Amino acid sequence: MARSPTHNVRERLLDAGVTTFSRSGFHGSSVQDITDAAGVPKGSFYNHFESKEALGVAALDQYWSDDAGDRLKILGQPGLAPLERLRHYFERATVDLAAKNYTCGCLAANMTAEISDHSPAIASQLSAIFATWSSQIADCLGEAQVAGELRPSVDAGMLATFVLNAWEGAVLRARIEKGERPLRQFIDVLFTQLLR
Amino acid sequence: MARSPTHNVRERLLDAGVTTFSRSGFHGSSVQDITDAAGVPKGSFYNHFESKEALGVAALDQYWSDDAGDRLKILGQPGLAPLERLRHYFERATVDLAAKNYTCGCLAANMTAEISDHSPAIASQLSAIFATWSSQIADCLGEAQVAGELRPSVDAGMLATFVLNAWEGAVLRARIEKGERPLRQFIDVLFTQLLR
Repeated sequence: MARSPTHNVRERLLDAGVTTFSRSGFHGSSVQDITDAAGVPKGSFYNHFESKEALGVAALDQYWSDDAGDRLKILGQPGLAPLERLRHYFERATVDLAAKNYTCGCLAANMTAEISDHSPAIASQLSAIFATWSSQIADCLGEAQVAGELRPSVDAGMLATFVLNAWEGAVLRARIEKGERPLRQFIDVLFTQLLR
Repeated sequence: MARSPTHNVRERLLDAGVTTFSRSGFHGSSVQDITDAAGVPKGSFYNHFESKEALGVAALDQYWSDDAGDRLKILGQPGLAPLERLRHYFERATVDLAAKNYTCGCLAANMTAEISDHSPAIASQLSAIFATWSSQIADCLGEAQVAGELRPSVDAGMLATFVLNAWEGAVLRARIEKGERPLRQFIDVLFTQLLR
């Protein structure tokens, strides 16, 4: 079934929002920049989003369910031991960052750094994203405990939050170095020192 | 010796740069916002800095040597075992973030997220800051190895980078939660699970 032209404009604005916010930040992206990137008239923006902030919330949702969400399926990949799945997940994320020459980083972390103090709507969306993300890593760590790969004494939820935060910090650092070293070091320390 | 008025204006612009960039981000702070915060005429800005980017570089240096640098002295505090010093350091940083209600976070991480892809001058300053910071943590971890507090098999430099990145990720997360939980969890996992 063909999509309606209106639906199409909204999707183009969403995709352009994800790309433009990722490249230039929230304040660094004007509505004009976004409509230009989407290839739609500037006037059409407000037919679909009441503000740039509203697009920010929707763009985070799009980023999460599309780009990041797709990668998260690796955590549930059948036929692999839990910690192998977690390693594959971070290896794949490393490859995806390399493909962008370590620019842009993670839109959720960027929005946190730039705008979470000022926009309750964006902060709430970020909170939901990080809660789900942590919880999926926690499930994988819990399975590793059941499988005997990881000591059972540690709280999987707390450990998952630590691991995710360490990853986000490594992604920031890779942007400065414009190289994979901080991401490789993250994977190395994670699997040889922390998850034992 | 009294400072010259010119010196004073430059210092006020620097302090205002640190505060304004921390609160509103780089793109979210105009030169006017900065001169207003400094209480100096807008026209005086370009007598001291050739661009907002140049102030960004200087503000990072100021932030590092003043706020963050002062806290780093804890890592060399005499009379405490190395890992106790590291714990004190992160406890103090947690208190400092609580005093700002978990807003603003770390200026170095924020600048990385927002501007490091676009400003080689700021990226270079950030690279120097993170290298020094990691190296000071690595020295402390190395002392912990000598003191028998930490297994000697692990590379202290790589571990220090991991620890610092994990801290930066936890600081971001605390901004979303507007609470200390991610920082407490960081300290807990760091000292009970990683540094053993």
